[in-house]
Amino acid sequence: MVEWCWREQNVFLNIFLTRGKLLGMEREIAMTTAHPVQVSVLRWAPPIVHGLVRDLRVRWALEEAGWPYREHVVSREDQASASYRELQPFGQVPAFRSDELTLFESGAIVHHIAERSPALMPQEPASRSQVTAWMFGALNSVEPPIMMFNILDMVYQGPKGADVQALRTWIVGWVESRLDALVHVLEGKEYVLGRFTAADVLLTTVLRILRDTDFVTKRPPLDAYQRRCEARPAFRKALEDHLANFAKHAPSA
Amino acid sequence: MVEWCWREQNVFLNIFLTRGKLLGMEREIAMTTAHPVQVSVLRWAPPIVHGLVRDLRVRWALEEAGWPYREHVVSREDQASASYRELQPFGQVPAFRSDELTLFESGAIVHHIAERSPALMPQEPASRSQVTAWMFGALNSVEPPIMMFNILDMVYQGPKGADVQALRTWIVGWVESRLDALVHVLEGKEYVLGRFTAADVLLTTVLRILRDTDFVTKRPPLDAYQRRCEARPAFRKALEDHLANFAKHAPSA
Repeated sequence: MVEWCWREQNVFLNIFLTRGKLLGMEREIAMTTAHPVQVSVLRWAPPIVHGLVRDLRVRWALEEAGWPYREHVVSREDQASASYRELQPFGQVPAFRSDELTLFESGAIVHHIAERSPALMPQEPASRSQVTAWMFGALNSVEPPIMMFNILDMVYQGPKGADVQALRTWIVGWVESRLDALVHVLEGKEYVLGRFTAADVLLTTVLRILRDTDFVTKRPPLDAYQRRCEARPAFRKALEDHLANFAKHAPSA
Repeated sequence: MVEWCWREQNVFLNIFLTRGKLLGMEREIAMTTAHPVQVSVLRWAPPIVHGLVRDLRVRWALEEAGWPYREHVVSREDQASASYRELQPFGQVPAFRSDELTLFESGAIVHHIAERSPALMPQEPASRSQVTAWMFGALNSVEPPIMMFNILDMVYQGPKGADVQALRTWIVGWVESRLDALVHVLEGKEYVLGRFTAADVLLTTVLRILRDTDFVTKRPPLDAYQRRCEARPAFRKALEDHLANFAKHAPSA
């Protein structure tokens, strides 16, 4: 039922050797050379969520950190299985496995990687707590209204008469107020905390949920931020691998 | 505009001396005796959200950790002010201030306290990551459907005809599936990770949002878990102080 996809060893080496980050490199190598970590990803999902499924966050964090990983491809049946529920209590992706532990929740997995990678989190304790604050902020203050909007527009397929449209308008106002706050925060900054951190991994992937709307594009500072983050080589690589997995397992027509 | 409420010094001492936790006590004292930390709380809120506003989570974590704190009481006007937005970018409560840093997001503040308190987080790295996983899990896999349900039933005041009722039914199914998964996780356990941790602080306060429904009470293991957590002296004390603040600032009729 479960298929283990091993990525080529030389891909890992390549990422490692071309990354050119020296700070903390030895520590990163020590963390990652024993065995590549595993990330569970969906075998397939409808195109509407390609580029959004939350394994993308973890892939991106791993690329930024320079950790090799292998995909643990799970089918719908796997997701419902007792053994997968042991790893991920809600049957979602991603789940994560390393030599030391198993873990679930994209936010927690990215946090775990970030705590061990200077590419994603600075060393000073106060700065680390700030990164954590913005990680929770992205997922708990920014994502909930966006998710509600997305569910109403994309996921929920029931009747959407006048009353649902009025509710939608109310949710839109909530999304707008959060995005306006973000524009203010980003004023004069390249990334939410100045330098790139794990908080940007989460915030960018949250904003991506709005890709088929003009919420972000009509706010130039937010749009520029989103483009800046998505232009990072680590993001491009993560997205490429995320999409390649779906292409590989696409059901034949 | 901003009122600083200092709690009596002997209340802090009392919490300290009667707690009787010896493990890690010296470290806790070192963390907290310089100055009490500050937690921003709403000056007043409508009774429907008393016992739910998210400063309760932070108060509870602080009581479990045995850290003295003082309330930073903010009015509606304060919440909208530039100086408060500096502390809390979305104008929400709680925000947190210590000698070392300022912080926002209830999840991140509880995490910051937990990282420094053995009462809320074990010492082994793998166990610590598990606590973080369940903290993100409580706020990102359990709270979103519950919040959506709560918004539809309690917060949103627009028309709720047949289409909105159909949407509500869909959301109820989502809530139910998450709670069923939790029942499975709690099987044979007192707390979500066996011993009490910061994950229980978040999970319990998320489940409290459903207090006016039978979602939890009709699931005996979940109901027992909720009661067990809410029977803890630290929770009772936190709730008492949370409610006392609202009582003190209640508008005269």
